[in-house]
Amino acid sequence: MIIVMKPDATPAQVEHVIEKIKELGLKPNVSKGVERTVIGVIGVDDRARVEPLEVYPGVDSVTPIGRSYKLVSRRFHPDNSVILVGPNTAVGGEKIVVMAGPCSVESREQLKAVGDAVKKAGAAFLRGGAFKPRTSPYSFQGLGEEGLKYLREQGDACGLPVVTEVMDTRQVELVVQYADMLQVGARNMQNFDLLREVGQAKKPILLKRGLSSTIEELLLSAEYIASKGNMKIVLCERGIRTFETATRNTMDLSAIPVLKVETHLPVIADPSHGTGSWTYVLPMARAAVAAGADGIMIEVHHAPETAKSDGPQSLKPAKFEMLMKEIRAVAEAIGRSV
Amino acid sequence: MIIVMKPDATPAQVEHVIEKIKELGLKPNVSKGVERTVIGVIGVDDRARVEPLEVYPGVDSVTPIGRSYKLVSRRFHPDNSVILVGPNTAVGGEKIVVMAGPCSVESREQLKAVGDAVKKAGAAFLRGGAFKPRTSPYSFQGLGEEGLKYLREQGDACGLPVVTEVMDTRQVELVVQYADMLQVGARNMQNFDLLREVGQAKKPILLKRGLSSTIEELLLSAEYIASKGNMKIVLCERGIRTFETATRNTMDLSAIPVLKVETHLPVIADPSHGTGSWTYVLPMARAAVAAGADGIMIEVHHAPETAKSDGPQSLKPAKFEMLMKEIRAVAEAIGRSV
Amino acid sequence: MIIVMKPDATPAQVEHVIEKIKELGLKPNVSKGVERTVIGVIGVDDRARVEPLEVYPGVDSVTPIGRSYKLVSRRFHPDNSVILVGPNTAVGGEKIVVMAGPCSVESREQLKAVGDAVKKAGAAFLRGGAFKPRTSPYSFQGLGEEGLKYLREQGDACGLPVVTEVMDTRQVELVVQYADMLQVGARNMQNFDLLREVGQAKKPILLKRGLSSTIEELLLSAEYIASKGNMKIVLCERGIRTFETATRNTMDLSAIPVLKVETHLPVIADPSHGTGSWTYVLPMARAAVAAGADGIMIEVHHAPETAKSDGPQSLKPAKFEMLMKEIRAVAEAIGRSV
Amino acid sequence: MIIVMKPDATPAQVEHVIEKIKELGLKPNVSKGVERTVIGVIGVDDRARVEPLEVYPGVDSVTPIGRSYKLVSRRFHPDNSVILVGPNTAVGGEKIVVMAGPCSVESREQLKAVGDAVKKAGAAFLRGGAFKPRTSPYSFQGLGEEGLKYLREQGDACGLPVVTEVMDTRQVELVVQYADMLQVGARNMQNFDLLREVGQAKKPILLKRGLSSTIEELLLSAEYIASKGNMKIVLCERGIRTFETATRNTMDLSAIPVLKVETHLPVIADPSHGTGSWTYVLPMARAAVAAGADGIMIEVHHAPETAKSDGPQSLKPAKFEMLMKEIRAVAEAIGRSV
Repeated sequence: MIIVMKPDATPAQVEHVIEKIKELGLKPNVSKGVERTVIGVIGVDDRARVEPLEVYPGVDSVTPIGRSYKLVSRRFHPDNSVILVGPNTAVGGEKIVVMAGPCSVESREQLKAVGDAVKKAGAAFLRGGAFKPRTSPYSFQGLGEEGLKYLREQGDACGLPVVTEVMDTRQVELVVQYADMLQVGARNMQNFDLLREVGQAKKPILLKRGLSSTIEELLLSAEYIASKGNMKIVLCERGIRTFETATRNTMDLSAIPVLKVETHLPVIADPSHGTGSWTYVLPMARAAVAAGADGIMIEVHHAPETAKSDGPQSLKPAKFEMLMKEIRAVAEAIGRSV
Repeated sequence: MIIVMKPDATPAQVEHVIEKIKELGLKPNVSKGVERTVIGVIGVDDRARVEPLEVYPGVDSVTPIGRSYKLVSRRFHPDNSVILVGPNTAVGGEKIVVMAGPCSVESREQLKAVGDAVKKAGAAFLRGGAFKPRTSPYSFQGLGEEGLKYLREQGDACGLPVVTEVMDTRQVELVVQYADMLQVGARNMQNFDLLREVGQAKKPILLKRGLSSTIEELLLSAEYIASKGNMKIVLCERGIRTFETATRNTMDLSAIPVLKVETHLPVIADPSHGTGSWTYVLPMARAAVAAGADGIMIEVHHAPETAKSDGPQSLKPAKFEMLMKEIRAVAEAIGRSV
Repeated sequence: MIIVMKPDATPAQVEHVIEKIKELGLKPNVSKGVERTVIGVIGVDDRARVEPLEVYPGVDSVTPIGRSYKLVSRRFHPDNSVILVGPNTAVGGEKIVVMAGPCSVESREQLKAVGDAVKKAGAAFLRGGAFKPRTSPYSFQGLGEEGLKYLREQGDACGLPVVTEVMDTRQVELVVQYADMLQVGARNMQNFDLLREVGQAKKPILLKRGLSSTIEELLLSAEYIASKGNMKIVLCERGIRTFETATRNTMDLSAIPVLKVETHLPVIADPSHGTGSWTYVLPMARAAVAAGADGIMIEVHHAPETAKSDGPQSLKPAKFEMLMKEIRAVAEAIGRSV
Repeated sequence: MIIVMKPDATPAQVEHVIEKIKELGLKPNVSKGVERTVIGVIGVDDRARVEPLEVYPGVDSVTPIGRSYKLVSRRFHPDNSVILVGPNTAVGGEKIVVMAGPCSVESREQLKAVGDAVKKAGAAFLRGGAFKPRTSPYSFQGLGEEGLKYLREQGDACGLPVVTEVMDTRQVELVVQYADMLQVGARNMQNFDLLREVGQAKKPILLKRGLSSTIEELLLSAEYIASKGNMKIVLCERGIRTFETATRNTMDLSAIPVLKVETHLPVIADPSHGTGSWTYVLPMARAAVAAGADGIMIEVHHAPETAKSDGPQSLKPAKFEMLMKEIRAVAEAIGRSV
């Protein structure tokens, strides 16, 4: 870490900081300039010790060096991780995976209609929500375990692994029984108890970026999961909150190349939540693939007019087929496949 | 709700929307203009029905009228709610309450030192974290139940009600046994299962605004709690995330007068998290009181240099005494007391 | 526009608003519901009249219908505009244009080195700054007219039209003499006098989106230019300011499909400023093309280590060649060319 | 500045950076750790040299030390600056000044009505816009020089100095003839040519913070003005752009104490633009005073219903009188006066 002293810091204040650093078992490297003194400290785990030193008299700023995540860092694992989901679906390899399905599981019939359609169009995963995080307590909250059953049935029927959200630590055990992959949603990205709990689950995790979470915070949340022993993590960019209101969220596609540099974990993108409008899903799905995403997640509904949630951003099956065709072309242009 | 049709919507599309509205048991009021048709629908619970109509062909936009929260709305409860915490501490009355204590409970001795100091200076609550939501899995995570015990002891010893954070649904039962008020932190403001759980607790709730949550979302989260039967809710503005980095967060003090118009619930402010630096806590505490806050929450530590969390934003006891004196003067200037 | 009255608005207040609307020569359409009254007003130019009505007693909200831009709206001009720049370079057609060159013009030699390289790699425009908007008064401010001369020379030498920034109304006359296209930079997007001035210039305008400007504001700034008679406008997404610091700005690529729906004007993207780091320029250039951009703008420098501005985000010529190859493949995948 | 090398930087890369620093006439201080090397450089003007080094192979990050503004920094001028405006009005002393008047000058009669009212209530300045920066080209653009004349007349009539906005470099000469203080608006905070121009004017400048400008950028814009010789600068916090839509902007009141630490210049606040709604102007004016503002700027209109701009956020004279009374009480509570 780098400790910059204030221009008017006294020699005693500088000495006090140096002493403190030595007490921590670290080695200070002192640079005395005309204007101010700077103290460099190079060691392990320095991030954890950042805060207190900022409080010392005479200290202007303390800047950590290096990243505070380790297990998920590409530095410690240079090769791309490929995560196996279900019996034989790989995420993070040359092939780009498409996860598709309705926002909410509404009924066995609905899920069959949508599931069969996305399978036919080439999706690699079936998605659908049984436990729904809704802003209002008066909105549809999902079918719960009944929804999980339909998901498992339809996943088995069409031979696709199933991904669904888990919202609460107490649901993990149940969801693990039905799903092939557990999704931690944007609003729970910093629900640290939930992260620890899914870190002990024996299933891969899809971790969505929070609405106002930095890329570093996303990686630290992945680190929570990894630190409990579960390295099967896929990250998902799904739009952040900004001042722009023309779209539901602002898709931060540059997070994809940034994440590919920082971590070995696969990264996918969700243009349905990212834009909030089916009109923009196709171009943004193409863009996500071109930016280097390892997969995309798409909301599909056979009758968006009657959808119990997220109708405006759901594609009808025919549009979804067109999307598959378009992203396949872009994937090939960059040397990958769908 | 107001449905604006596109300029090129066909008469059949307009008719389709009108039919659908009638099916929902609502009465459409149609305005045909030169450029486009607008359909007004006035009824109850219209917010819940907003989404699907946006999907209809020819529809340009759907705007809800009215608020989607009810129990917490001032419209349905015009008088200020006064929340009683512990045996005899009221929040939301003429008197402004100060909640003070360390960020984390670190030891019995630390809590006694800080607790005695804040009590002496005039704090109305003792605060302290036993379960800590930390961005990194490698940071200090709190003492857990041991911390709760120290809190209860110190609260009893100095005669102050105790407020502390609960992070997980499974902790609620435990925390209720020790605390007088349960805090739902910023990162859990949309942890809907936790909201439902504390909605069934028999203790008052301090609900902090999420880092990127709108005021409307804060009220909808309060509505989750209220909808489960617990009306003893205090809201807290603690800074939102913006592009500015000079402060840890950006305190949105205008949320205070906005909330006072929208809801009958008490509103407090947390300038320690709002600014992230003890240097700015005093002026922002004064400002929060001047803006109409019913209370403020302040992190105090007898030795910030050794604090296990949030040292840089913690006041020493002497500064806290000064803060109490200053906010008392401002409170009196606006006809209140501390 | 839609005027929603408060639930407790008196009949006299409703009548007052209705009278006022009639005075404005507009026709009110009144919907009286159980809870509240809503007044629809459909007419032309309603946006201009929005503000005052919000002040009337009993009014809860006033929502405009329709867009406030006209000349640049796709509604009034359904076909894509193709803008001719210089003798024979079209922007907005099937072919995607690449504008490339150094951030700042530093010398005749530098511009020749970079200009020849980007021409050879297939760029369609030469870009370079002679007047530089710098955050600090102590940073390099550009070569001024000398830089313009080098730009013209090099543009002529390699047969590329030249685009360069104009920062001040007083510079327009000068820049018009040298450049084929005038750039209005992000920081001047709402410099309304400058917009009016370039609206009277006889050269096409490249209008960059402001750091915190909404898409609607960008279109209104284009409308300023158009309203003065200059319809030759190209819009540019170059990243907005958000809380994320991993990239210099956050590229809002969804602005591209949104703009393509809203306006007939061509839209390009600038991944150099959008990301601030050459590492991310390639994937984001590919993504911009996949999202539907009509062009991209790239900073290239033969020796970024010595660049007087924006070195970290500048590509070396070899990388730029690779970029050209990659975006060509993506363009073809979506049925366009570079 | 602090240069952090990548963990895998080669010795040759480290050496290359060290050589470069020496070439710049600076002295590198090298710390070799187990994981990586850090090079400290302490000297003057280091900020100006930050950019290029980031491009060097093996460099991970370059962090400047110290501030990039000088003339406006409190470090170089520890005492508060008191700015004299007009014959005898001081900004930045013990007394808090109130600048009040209509958003736009609409007519001689309007300005007289409002001007007399604010004078009577105790305002220290008359404000009013003659050149108006409007988002839409179809909105009222101000009376221009006619408006300036009315302002001068009314200022003289009621004995108040006059502050008004200048939008374009070509207007400066004109506005200087009529106004006592020139306002540079939020949208022009980084119109660098305008900053340079008003830096040569012989009148004090009111510099408003841009909608998405950091505090550091505000100070650098002030530095532009100061670097041209005009040190008579007053800064103004007027709300920043965030995701929250309940208020027109989000007032960043913590900018006030931050600025008071960083600069010797006076700081005022504008709750009219900050909130966008007259309902919230009073509490936020009180809060600004409590936070340490040296003044506040308030939009007042005798008939907001007919205002040509900003009606919804304008106070009627009676409310303004109440505001004066309330902020006077808060000012006294913190040892100042109004």
